[in-house]
Amino acid sequence: MRVIRSTTQMQRLSRQLVGKGKTIGLVPTMGYLHEGHLSLIHRARKLADVVAVTIFVNPAQFSPTEDLRRYPHDERGDLRKIRKAGGDIVFIPTSRDMYPAEFETWVEVERLSKTLEGKVRPTHFRGVTTVVTKLYNICRPDLVVFGMKDYQQAMVLRRMTVDLGYNIRFVIAPTVREADGLAMSSRNAYFDAGGRAEAICLYRALSTARAMVRAGIKRPSRLEREIRAVIRATAPTSRIDYVAFTDFATLQPVATVDRSTICSLAVRVRNVRLIDNMKMA
Amino acid sequence: MRVIRSTTQMQRLSRQLVGKGKTIGLVPTMGYLHEGHLSLIHRARKLADVVAVTIFVNPAQFSPTEDLRRYPHDERGDLRKIRKAGGDIVFIPTSRDMYPAEFETWVEVERLSKTLEGKVRPTHFRGVTTVVTKLYNICRPDLVVFGMKDYQQAMVLRRMTVDLGYNIRFVIAPTVREADGLAMSSRNAYFDAGGRAEAICLYRALSTARAMVRAGIKRPSRLEREIRAVIRATAPTSRIDYVAFTDFATLQPVATVDRSTICSLAVRVRNVRLIDNMKMA
Repeated sequence: MRVIRSTTQMQRLSRQLVGKGKTIGLVPTMGYLHEGHLSLIHRARKLADVVAVTIFVNPAQFSPTEDLRRYPHDERGDLRKIRKAGGDIVFIPTSRDMYPAEFETWVEVERLSKTLEGKVRPTHFRGVTTVVTKLYNICRPDLVVFGMKDYQQAMVLRRMTVDLGYNIRFVIAPTVREADGLAMSSRNAYFDAGGRAEAICLYRALSTARAMVRAGIKRPSRLEREIRAVIRATAPTSRIDYVAFTDFATLQPVATVDRSTICSLAVRVRNVRLIDNMKMA
Repeated sequence: MRVIRSTTQMQRLSRQLVGKGKTIGLVPTMGYLHEGHLSLIHRARKLADVVAVTIFVNPAQFSPTEDLRRYPHDERGDLRKIRKAGGDIVFIPTSRDMYPAEFETWVEVERLSKTLEGKVRPTHFRGVTTVVTKLYNICRPDLVVFGMKDYQQAMVLRRMTVDLGYNIRFVIAPTVREADGLAMSSRNAYFDAGGRAEAICLYRALSTARAMVRAGIKRPSRLEREIRAVIRATAPTSRIDYVAFTDFATLQPVATVDRSTICSLAVRVRNVRLIDNMKMA
């Protein structure tokens, strides 16, 4: 497994690999890897000749008030896990290399970036789409794997990938959950035992909503009321950023919930911002 | 020579070529080719295994009041010229293929796009950087050739190319001029004989300024006064959009003209908007 820290070196290596007819599978991450990330690497391993994993805590997708500085990291652990999961290349660029002082080019998906997360975090997706464009250009993947946990991110990036003419197969892998249903996230590391117990509120609320939909209740407002009640009961001090029932592909709110509806939640539990989602099928 | 009109087909071909270890030289154009374009193709021919020329009158870089609809075209003539100049592939996408209804991703170079042309044409460079990003991704060039006539465009695109992590050699070829000095441009086709005679005002003014600089006059305001006088004398009904003395790389105005200063002009001559520039060395 090769660990590469220089953009120029990564550009050269990917050009060489593609020039030899190899296919490259890319898994972009912010490090502090958990089972969710590893499932993405396993998926890429099955689909490509060469698996490249990137570790980069992208400052452009954090706002000044967010957790960039305290974002957890464990490079040695990450490298061990990536090797075990079958990664061939780990690209770990520096912020200075990715965003030098004169940097001033941004990639933006106009509409899909403005709803849900984009309302609460207005510059977030611009940071995501810009860094992923860079990673595409530096690593030259034939396919890329993202997780369904960051569902809107996946939709925004899929749109960007198609719109900008990339010939890259866009794979979305299912959310990996803890035994109790909590979606795996590097941010789960922020919790003490009490917070961890409350963090389950998102999964519990989503499961309740899905059960209601299966029982024939299709009105978003009715479902949202129940979701809010479950969250309040499980995590009394939490703050809900949004509860949204939207169409899977367009992210537009639906009037009636059906099989292609996704429910998305963003909740601050003891000052840790969690998101999760579930298909209401 | 292959003529390709489908984005998907072009994506596949470029992937194949790169996979066989070929280098690709790209020359993006809006068609109606003149000697200026052909010099770019010749340059690419010397530097790459495969030369791809694109013809696409990009609607995203025209504002509603501009000349998109009347922009001249001559596909048969273009194909003949490209073959003669050594092109291997001509990619002629449709607008619908490049900008389908759901398209919503834009690439923007923030600062360099806002000055000079960007002041007069606020969405112009966003259209240029977006389409060139797409052409890069579809055609996978190892090098690209642009003309110095569109000097700010070259600077904006060079910035975009570096910022987004493309491993693409960025070549800027010198402006090709008519015998009397008029910079070659597809828009020169708009002129009747009287307009054509007045169109020389840009070159005449730039040459005068350069002669003055060589004679020791270094103050932009003094040089600009002379430039305006020459333009007024040569093309009395013309309207000057701007006269600018800027640093070559940063496009920032200079207080004193030196060898790295570029003078840029935009002038409307009989309702045809012309731009030109000259290094003051």
